[in-house]
Amino acid sequence: MEEERIDDLGINGYRIIQKKNSFCFGMDAVLLSDFASVRPGGKVLDLGTGTGIIPILMEAKTSGSSFTGLEIQPAMAEMASRSVRLNHLEEKVKIVEGDIRDASTIFSAESFDVITSNPPYMIDNHGLTNPKESKAIARHEIKCKFSDISKAAKRLLKYRGVLYLVHRSFRLAEILNQLSEDGIEPKRIRFVHPYQDRESNIFLLEAVKGGRSRMIVEPPLIVYKDVNQYTDEIYRIYRMNSKE
Amino acid sequence: MEEERIDDLGINGYRIIQKKNSFCFGMDAVLLSDFASVRPGGKVLDLGTGTGIIPILMEAKTSGSSFTGLEIQPAMAEMASRSVRLNHLEEKVKIVEGDIRDASTIFSAESFDVITSNPPYMIDNHGLTNPKESKAIARHEIKCKFSDISKAAKRLLKYRGVLYLVHRSFRLAEILNQLSEDGIEPKRIRFVHPYQDRESNIFLLEAVKGGRSRMIVEPPLIVYKDVNQYTDEIYRIYRMNSKE
Repeated sequence: MEEERIDDLGINGYRIIQKKNSFCFGMDAVLLSDFASVRPGGKVLDLGTGTGIIPILMEAKTSGSSFTGLEIQPAMAEMASRSVRLNHLEEKVKIVEGDIRDASTIFSAESFDVITSNPPYMIDNHGLTNPKESKAIARHEIKCKFSDISKAAKRLLKYRGVLYLVHRSFRLAEILNQLSEDGIEPKRIRFVHPYQDRESNIFLLEAVKGGRSRMIVEPPLIVYKDVNQYTDEIYRIYRMNSKE
Repeated sequence: MEEERIDDLGINGYRIIQKKNSFCFGMDAVLLSDFASVRPGGKVLDLGTGTGIIPILMEAKTSGSSFTGLEIQPAMAEMASRSVRLNHLEEKVKIVEGDIRDASTIFSAESFDVITSNPPYMIDNHGLTNPKESKAIARHEIKCKFSDISKAAKRLLKYRGVLYLVHRSFRLAEILNQLSEDGIEPKRIRFVHPYQDRESNIFLLEAVKGGRSRMIVEPPLIVYKDVNQYTDEIYRIYRMNSKE
């Protein structure tokens, strides 16, 4: 069996199980769970949950009542479920094995207040040696295109429900176009730059089903102020480790 | 006659005539002319040129061969023409009085390498006391909607020609959607923030007719580092006053 490791999440004492040679959660998931908010009692779905990192962090950081993670890869879904049990979160966090393209048959229409996703970001599988490999599925649009995410969100979000995404900046125009086409209006965006004077690599987006087209472009989020030295804001996000 | 003033542009000794009580050029135009580039010999059109500030600055900053400004307001077009003569630029800079919605009959199809525009940015004329007033026409979408700009650019740009825009950040999604719909693909964007920790108010955009959807989100452009103190980059942009 592939070797596993258990990492501390620095919040509520929660831990996450990851495979050493597979896709491990990164800063994307941490930033997204900080950017997102859930009203008290809200129902949350994470599309393509991987290790389950986003629902577990969202349970710790928000007052939502239930958190569901949908994951297509059986071994990954099973491992995410073990992380849920490890943290004794079975009452609030559920991992469901399934395909995002079937999400609207797996879940009831308009049943979620919030949907989160850190989707595969590479457009195709060009240059991949083994496109069936678990890491490839998490990073490349092999099993799921962005339009699948957008259409699942359209069907599963309540009216005025909110989609939170982290995605690659080079796909900005395409992502905004797709969401507008599906009636999920981009409302708030934050660009993440590795350094102050570098291009943005990822962005965080809030989009509202049935919203009006009027956006807020938040202050840039800079990751490093110097080599190996995080900015104060990144330290704040990583240290934010209790609900109050 | 309304009182006029003549301002120095700090580049090539050029000056611009403006009306004291009307719309005066601002930082938007200066930032756009710094963001844009024109290949040697390129033909450039500015849609909604106002005082003629953008073609005059572009003539100074680039190696383009001709610069045309289209302006709907007769008094404004006449004043822009006088600024052209004041700077002895009649050979290279032309001001044409006309409506952006008629641009594709005024100019030949696919005849420009570069189109620039600092279009009206308010969506409607809500709350305006006098929507015929010159300042209102320059700021509000009374005479021209963004789709008129996009469609004019689609018809007048050569294949692979480039559109440079400055626009308001709250309209980001709508602007990107419209351009993509018209086959002018957003390629490079830069968000301008008044301060490091403030939302972006405007953005600079480069879009290519027939381009692929893959974007670069440049480092943020911050205007002030402290109250009344410009950042070094803004000083650089304002001081950039010769072609080499």
